[in-house]
Amino acid sequence: MFCKPGKGRQFGGIFNNAILAVGSIGFFPLQTSYLSPPNVPDMQLFFTTDIIGQRAALPADEARHCVQVLRKKPGDRVQFIDGEGGMFTGRILEVGKKSCVIAVEEEERNYQPLPAAVHLAVAPTKNISRIEWLLEKATEIGLTAFHPFFSEHSERKVLKPERLEKIALSAAKQSGRAYVPKIMPAVPFADFLEQAPVCEQRFAAYLGEGVKGSLKLNYRPGADVCLLIGPEGGFSPREAALAASKGYALVSLGPNRLRTETAALAACHTVNLINQDFHTRLDDRSL
Amino acid sequence: MFCKPGKGRQFGGIFNNAILAVGSIGFFPLQTSYLSPPNVPDMQLFFTTDIIGQRAALPADEARHCVQVLRKKPGDRVQFIDGEGGMFTGRILEVGKKSCVIAVEEEERNYQPLPAAVHLAVAPTKNISRIEWLLEKATEIGLTAFHPFFSEHSERKVLKPERLEKIALSAAKQSGRAYVPKIMPAVPFADFLEQAPVCEQRFAAYLGEGVKGSLKLNYRPGADVCLLIGPEGGFSPREAALAASKGYALVSLGPNRLRTETAALAACHTVNLINQDFHTRLDDRSL
Repeated sequence: MFCKPGKGRQFGGIFNNAILAVGSIGFFPLQTSYLSPPNVPDMQLFFTTDIIGQRAALPADEARHCVQVLRKKPGDRVQFIDGEGGMFTGRILEVGKKSCVIAVEEEERNYQPLPAAVHLAVAPTKNISRIEWLLEKATEIGLTAFHPFFSEHSERKVLKPERLEKIALSAAKQSGRAYVPKIMPAVPFADFLEQAPVCEQRFAAYLGEGVKGSLKLNYRPGADVCLLIGPEGGFSPREAALAASKGYALVSLGPNRLRTETAALAACHTVNLINQDFHTRLDDRSL
Repeated sequence: MFCKPGKGRQFGGIFNNAILAVGSIGFFPLQTSYLSPPNVPDMQLFFTTDIIGQRAALPADEARHCVQVLRKKPGDRVQFIDGEGGMFTGRILEVGKKSCVIAVEEEERNYQPLPAAVHLAVAPTKNISRIEWLLEKATEIGLTAFHPFFSEHSERKVLKPERLEKIALSAAKQSGRAYVPKIMPAVPFADFLEQAPVCEQRFAAYLGEGVKGSLKLNYRPGADVCLLIGPEGGFSPREAALAASKGYALVSLGPNRLRTETAALAACHTVNLINQDFHTRLDDRSL
């Protein structure tokens, strides 16, 4: 469903030729939209929530990037998202140094929603870059909301949401997603359990005795899910009892030790991989 | 199968109590081995290839870490790997500032092999940290060998293997793996295709028209596999034709754009996740 024939992007031409030459062989379009099926968003997606009727305005930083870095001009076609599932195409009406007004020509609401909500609850690692990395990758793969929590053994006690929000937005634009994962405020673990989203399935990843099976075998395709990944230092007994009382089921992610962020991404990818098929069955999309 | 009851590690005691208190609920032992099933290696695994009969010596940097950082002494129990599937347990015989001699007491060859060889071929990204991250995570999840290649559009033209080898070793020890992924020398793309490992299945990840299906649906459980992930700039027509002549089949990793390193890890995890079940069927291991 992602195709933009005739788009004069960097490698589009040679790749069309290459594919004709080699039959069904092709390669993953990582940073370009060459050979993408219909509806693929532009490589450069913008973001704004300032959309009134058929007129949209980019916020200052997005406008600056559009106008000063990419040198877009009135009449140029642009695509943007609202972060809530809206994918828009329009033409630039007028530009300033930090402003860009767009006439909306096409819009699609609820653009490629995930087949199921994926909530990921993780205690931030001591090394903040590992959490930032996790958020970027989980967003690319498919994430509804990120719920950081502080547990008794957490080494990190502060987490600033602003940078995480930028990372989630950037990764969503990068991967052509119209939904930007929500970054929930970091709260104490007990508070998270109280406020946790209502999901059909809740899992706590675990490697040890008493595991009922793998996440893969226990996750029901299409089910909204909350995935709980323990902190580097482990939960306290009080925290474990609290989680149990909220119905988190014990599952394995495989026989090996995984770091916090690896476990979290593996859990997220497992759910989304299972839902690839569910997705296909739902609306007969090609994978 | 990973359990070490009675091991006096940091959170082992309280976690055993916690689990007794909360029934089947438990959490993922990320940086500790508490509640790990039988055979789980120590949190701190060492590495050496200097093993002669029942006597092993750690290399200088490992010995230094063991003796000076962890303050291990003669008589202390240690576990180590040889990187080729050997998992050893022994007691320290004698130590120096940069030396540590161990009497081997137990050894297991071919410790937890992957159910299938997973070869990952990727063009290094411009930002080297993204490749280093990929290698760390792929090693945790399960990787046989890493094959970097330079293609015509690669922005990075140099790749030093030493640091990558350290990352692979560190991640293997961290995740309790006895096999350390081989880091192959970075070579031109055409040379990679000539030298590529013989695998039962070969895939090139792709998002676009002509995709036969997903990697998930095309991968045959237990099959040795070579996964080819395109560079940031795309392959040239000549490169695409070359790969086609080597039988790389076109598969999708899902409908969204993924960065090079995300695509590579997703492909790797997809194969290993499918093989989790294959693994179970092979030897009835619990997951």
